Amino acid sequence: MAKFIPVDPFDIIIFGGTGDLSRRKLLPALFHRFLDGQLDSSNRIIAAARSDLDRTAFIEMAENACRKASKSWTDENWAKFAKMLDYIKIDATDEDADWAHLKSLLGHTEMTDPKRPLIYYLATTPLIYVAICEALGKAEMNTPNARLVLEKPIGKDLKSAQDINAGVGAIFPENSIFRIDHYLGKETVQNLLVLRFANTLFEPIWSRNSIDHVQITVSEDIGLEGRADYYDRSGAVRDMVQNHLLQLLCLTAMEPPNSLDGDEVRTEKIKVLNALKRFDANTVRTQTVRGQYIAGMNGTAPVKSYLDTLSPERQDSQTETFVAIKTEIQNWRWAGVPFYLRTGKRMDARRSEIVIQFKPTPHPLFGQAAHPPNRLVIRLQPDEGMNLFMQIKEPGPGGLHIKSLPLNLSYADNFTVRYPDAYERLLMDVVRGNLALFMRRDEVESAWKWVDNLLGAWKETDQPLETYAAGTQGPLQSAMLLDRDGREWWEGDI
Amino acid sequence: MAKFIPVDPFDIIIFGGTGDLSRRKLLPALFHRFLDGQLDSSNRIIAAARSDLDRTAFIEMAENACRKASKSWTDENWAKFAKMLDYIKIDATDEDADWAHLKSLLGHTEMTDPKRPLIYYLATTPLIYVAICEALGKAEMNTPNARLVLEKPIGKDLKSAQDINAGVGAIFPENSIFRIDHYLGKETVQNLLVLRFANTLFEPIWSRNSIDHVQITVSEDIGLEGRADYYDRSGAVRDMVQNHLLQLLCLTAMEPPNSLDGDEVRTEKIKVLNALKRFDANTVRTQTVRGQYIAGMNGTAPVKSYLDTLSPERQDSQTETFVAIKTEIQNWRWAGVPFYLRTGKRMDARRSEIVIQFKPTPHPLFGQAAHPPNRLVIRLQPDEGMNLFMQIKEPGPGGLHIKSLPLNLSYADNFTVRYPDAYERLLMDVVRGNLALFMRRDEVESAWKWVDNLLGAWKETDQPLETYAAGTQGPLQSAMLLDRDGREWWEGDI
Repeated sequence: MAKFIPVDPFDIIIFGGTGDLSRRKLLPALFHRFLDGQLDSSNRIIAAARSDLDRTAFIEMAENACRKASKSWTDENWAKFAKMLDYIKIDATDEDADWAHLKSLLGHTEMTDPKRPLIYYLATTPLIYVAICEALGKAEMNTPNARLVLEKPIGKDLKSAQDINAGVGAIFPENSIFRIDHYLGKETVQNLLVLRFANTLFEPIWSRNSIDHVQITVSEDIGLEGRADYYDRSGAVRDMVQNHLLQLLCLTAMEPPNSLDGDEVRTEKIKVLNALKRFDANTVRTQTVRGQYIAGMNGTAPVKSYLDTLSPERQDSQTETFVAIKTEIQNWRWAGVPFYLRTGKRMDARRSEIVIQFKPTPHPLFGQAAHPPNRLVIRLQPDEGMNLFMQIKEPGPGGLHIKSLPLNLSYADNFTVRYPDAYERLLMDVVRGNLALFMRRDEVESAWKWVDNLLGAWKETDQPLETYAAGTQGPLQSAMLLDRDGREWWEGDI
Repeated sequence: MAKFIPVDPFDIIIFGGTGDLSRRKLLPALFHRFLDGQLDSSNRIIAAARSDLDRTAFIEMAENACRKASKSWTDENWAKFAKMLDYIKIDATDEDADWAHLKSLLGHTEMTDPKRPLIYYLATTPLIYVAICEALGKAEMNTPNARLVLEKPIGKDLKSAQDINAGVGAIFPENSIFRIDHYLGKETVQNLLVLRFANTLFEPIWSRNSIDHVQITVSEDIGLEGRADYYDRSGAVRDMVQNHLLQLLCLTAMEPPNSLDGDEVRTEKIKVLNALKRFDANTVRTQTVRGQYIAGMNGTAPVKSYLDTLSPERQDSQTETFVAIKTEIQNWRWAGVPFYLRTGKRMDARRSEIVIQFKPTPHPLFGQAAHPPNRLVIRLQPDEGMNLFMQIKEPGPGGLHIKSLPLNLSYADNFTVRYPDAYERLLMDVVRGNLALFMRRDEVESAWKWVDNLLGAWKETDQPLETYAAGTQGPLQSAMLLDRDGREWWEGDI
């Protein structure tokens, strides 16, 4: 485990600070960084929300949240951490709210100390991002040391994303805006960058010459109870593909950047997005699959269909809860290499994986059957891990018998290490001002352009909605999408 | 561990069957293959030697040898194995010896059963190889089912090797002759072939484009007590480089063969030998180091100098007990890539290794210091193993800290497996008629041509003999040989 290098003192205001994200992720992430000695005790962590709480009640709520997430709880540590916490009841979209009170909670010098980052974390609905920023601007809190963190989704299409970006961008400079995608904070995703660019081994074979195809799977076994009506307005493409899957694709496929500087990395990612093949009425029919789950099982428990989780007026919903896509990156490195993406709710397992499948050896010296191709499997969920499937000689006398060996490329000798949550890593990146793993404005918009094209093509051709039973691997058509190319989805264990 | 596929019934006659090699390696190897159920109980294992033993005394000798080498000894197993054993006192160079008796020990049909291999293992001095073969020919024992196994050295220069090959070749066809080099029976050496040719990963980077240099080290900590006068006639180049080191070099560097068929593999190996750069008076001075050990330590025990182990009349010996060589394979794949070879007696450790050092990444994104180059280390002795040193991200929040991780490419999940001895594997190859890992006539001669050139250049330029203290890593000049190229010998642990 790397030593924890303390970050400089900072302050953070979490808007929506009593919400689900704050309780499940942000507060525990800050607490864990505190436990590991990375946080300065002068830091202020202020939750801002409309709930009618006081500081004591908030700290109690935070304690419950952190206690649940922490395996090395001590009351003493908690007491120290709690000293940093504060709460303010405020309607952050209201320019006339008591912003002076919020400023006073921060203390005096911090607002203007250019060396002390002041982080505004917007853990609210994106619908009020612009309003919050405008209020912050009015209150003159968009100081040079301020940093703004935005959760996805940034909009629901190119137009709305542009509106948000423009509104937010009028108050904060682009280099102070951290559009977060927690998938990029995963240990294994970051290790992918190291694997590719700190080793001589992979880059020469990281192209159409040696790679047969790439698969990116983000499957969830949960359904949408409780937030189905909300989800129904977006669907799998907007909810998952536009951000998580495309981001993973970018990091997998991008050219080596000039440096790890934020803009250099993001420029390479945008190049990938811009090179993604567009669909037309013809190709969208054969290269994409839309699906919606019907009743089925979750393990041994029967579960309702998607429609049955929706309110009565939405019973004609054509929203996809599953999508499978075959795409291609139209550039020198990747021409002709299929990238297969799929994501869905209520599938057979919770599993996020990138699979790089290499071409078979050109000339099977040891017999074709004994020769499964090399495969690099990067698992993000449920357990992070990175395995390279290689062929080795099975030890034994006489003959060269081949065995496929999964090499652990992450932490061969220390499986017991606690993997910091993605939010811990990304929050520290915000404090350090490292933008590389956050999305730039044009990057988000570039992703929306591709998604708008896909959704438009679906609409134009009236793309059918396939069904799949809850608890399965999606519609049959998803398997057929690969089968037509003589391939299959990797369902194996890492 | 691979399942043991039994080999067809065969018979073996070990000439020199009471000697060191027979007792230390051959008899235990056959016994282990028997224990694993690979041998048919109809097999005959006959030791032939000049010692005045009878069958009972020989079996007692064999029992002592096998008991020492076996970890799963039972008297019952031994009794079964011993039934296969027999002994004949014979001067095998004598055409008029009692060959009929030897034939009778084999039984009646085997001599002519073309499906039943009859193996003559010449575990004698090479000086009598031709005489034994001539006697076997005279006795009409060079039948089509016969296979001849020859131990190194085949000669002491090109001329004497040609003489042996011609003499032996007059009696046995080339495809029945198995010139053994037990280094090629090592698990890890065979795994090298699988790694290179059963995976897509390595072959594209297995060239001057990605490899910085290759090191082959065969160091021994023992000296030459007892056989120093014998050794003094050959020296390190003839004793080790001509066979073991050049063979390892060939397997590391050869092109992918058309198939694993013996002749295809050997053709590729010869191409490497023929492409080895020749020395002239100029280059031999700067690219090779000769050394002889003086008194020093073996662990904590003081040891004598090489000269002190020689008889009085050899006190002016200029024989090298150490050699370091920088060479190059002059072909398309390897042009400009140094291959550094070294071997010596009385060095600091017993260690045989091939080290493939890859080039550093062309553009150090993560900072130069954090960036040791990738390295593939193939260890043959003392413990077989194969490690790939890669860079991974050290798990932890924030920043991309790099860590060098040695990946075990041999048997990640079963370290406890017993690695069969090289002789076990190679003997089974002889029975199966698999010639790939044995040297063809032209291969031996090709290696001698290069060695003759080196020895000739030394003589011509009166190459100085450096000294090194016993228990060290050889003469200082050996380290300087690499230092001049900005490199160093890999002394690290696998």
